[in-house]
Amino acid sequence: MTPSRPELAIGVDLGGTKIHAAVVNRDGQVVSSHRIGTDVGGGPAKVVEDIAGAIQDGLGVDLSEIGAVGVGVAGQVDPRSGLVRSSPNLKWTDFPFGERLQEALGVPVVIDNDVQAATWGEWKHGAGRGFDDLLVLFVGTGVGGGAVTGGQLLIGRSGMAGEMGHVTIVVGGRQCTCPNKGCLEAYVGGWAIAKRAVETVLANGDAGRGLLDLARGAEITARLVSEAAANGDALAADIMDRTGRYLGAGLVGLVHVFEPARVVFGGGVIEGSPGLVEIAESVVRASAISAYTDGLEFVRSELGADAGVVGSASMALERVDALP
Amino acid sequence: MTPSRPELAIGVDLGGTKIHAAVVNRDGQVVSSHRIGTDVGGGPAKVVEDIAGAIQDGLGVDLSEIGAVGVGVAGQVDPRSGLVRSSPNLKWTDFPFGERLQEALGVPVVIDNDVQAATWGEWKHGAGRGFDDLLVLFVGTGVGGGAVTGGQLLIGRSGMAGEMGHVTIVVGGRQCTCPNKGCLEAYVGGWAIAKRAVETVLANGDAGRGLLDLARGAEITARLVSEAAANGDALAADIMDRTGRYLGAGLVGLVHVFEPARVVFGGGVIEGSPGLVEIAESVVRASAISAYTDGLEFVRSELGADAGVVGSASMALERVDALP
Repeated sequence: MTPSRPELAIGVDLGGTKIHAAVVNRDGQVVSSHRIGTDVGGGPAKVVEDIAGAIQDGLGVDLSEIGAVGVGVAGQVDPRSGLVRSSPNLKWTDFPFGERLQEALGVPVVIDNDVQAATWGEWKHGAGRGFDDLLVLFVGTGVGGGAVTGGQLLIGRSGMAGEMGHVTIVVGGRQCTCPNKGCLEAYVGGWAIAKRAVETVLANGDAGRGLLDLARGAEITARLVSEAAANGDALAADIMDRTGRYLGAGLVGLVHVFEPARVVFGGGVIEGSPGLVEIAESVVRASAISAYTDGLEFVRSELGADAGVVGSASMALERVDALP
Repeated sequence: MTPSRPELAIGVDLGGTKIHAAVVNRDGQVVSSHRIGTDVGGGPAKVVEDIAGAIQDGLGVDLSEIGAVGVGVAGQVDPRSGLVRSSPNLKWTDFPFGERLQEALGVPVVIDNDVQAATWGEWKHGAGRGFDDLLVLFVGTGVGGGAVTGGQLLIGRSGMAGEMGHVTIVVGGRQCTCPNKGCLEAYVGGWAIAKRAVETVLANGDAGRGLLDLARGAEITARLVSEAAANGDALAADIMDRTGRYLGAGLVGLVHVFEPARVVFGGGVIEGSPGLVEIAESVVRASAISAYTDGLEFVRSELGADAGVVGSASMALERVDALP
């Protein structure tokens, strides 16, 4: 059934709230895509069924033209066996996801970690194209990342490398969602920006009124802070400025550790506040050993929200191409 | 002259104060070694002459038995050309070191970064043997390190990756010797331990008397603090305990980023205070995401001060073996 050198693959980005599936060609272009919600409560079998349905009915492609299906999963996976060892977002433990989805689709299925897949996407088809030493940082609700070193994707002992959000930047600092205190994510993740903003508003009375008015009784979110900052609210601008500085402080370390040629920034917080890249860059240039920043480039993601599906599809094709 | 598959190589660890040369066999064992001072003031030609002399006269080996000479240099080097781009310790810029030493010795010479060479040594012949995902941290006067990821040594864009001492652990914290504030090295490097100890003594009057008495009017050093702590001085013990906690805070981040199978600790500060490993390990186990520490091992360097010469010799042999 599978063509000998297929031109198309399907990439799936599987998170705890939504499933994003896309047909992707060898140039990394999205041919068609489809999004549905994730029915975590229905259990793993239901998610397999929903993904198979989304692929068969939502993408308008004949599966006989598809070389492979790659799925990026938020969690700890074993790419060799397709086992999802643990995914807190999906509430899965040791689920043979690759095997089950392959049974449902009749097409080779490859499972990877979602952030590593997105890193691969930016590396092969996005802002990291052609770089052998690359750092990719995704700042969304959480903060994750990936690295390419010496032309090889950083994987780690069991596929979990790249938790760039969980580097300590303030010893004994703000409690993170992980057991650590003072993680980068606890300052610049979307949830952390919102939390810092609420605290700042509570502590600043009048100056915080702008944000409160904008929220209109609803929760203060990172997006709201970022919009308020763009509209000239001084308190919000200060919060985002500090966010950029924290981001820079974390990056100084990563730049010294990896010595990349390029840093790529993606994720919802960056999309909402692109100015963060500039602030972080200026901090890194001022604080790092100069040999590490000479020639180092800071750029934004080219694939945006498609990085995951493009990366998963591309990794899956590469894996299938390598089969004897 | 060079035997077809030589059994011996020479490793040289070249720093700003001393030159350590050794004959090393394929099993990573030091057959003979020799140490001399580095005459930085004499310029690069004098250092080449001194190294050649130390090798010819100090090692008791016939150069015709030697497959290659590997030199680890504190600084930025280009392993392909043997160029030392920049070495602040040696005060060299763009010196064709490999070429000159090869002319002087008539044996293939390979140049690498000293800390990467030491990491290679622990990986191939020391405490990191057999691990594809490894983190090595050297805590001496300065703090450096290396990583092996997916069975490949981390090199970086231009050979400078692994500045693990220059990750920010306290935003806006203590001034480092690099332009950054709050680096790991600014808390746990030998110079930083000494500086923190002086400040603590000045601020604590009576409690600091033990350290002052030990110093007998000379400078307070990290070694002195570590000896005083071992001998029950409460203030010194507290300083070393905090040092271990800072080390752990930095390591939490590196463990999340690399997901290694093993962390190897070396360097003079660790040799003087092996208890630091235990403190750092307990911090990492308490603070990291548990999946990253399950099965993760913390061990001390096996090669100690020989890691550099063993690594340089071993890398050089591997390079020469790979030649057509």
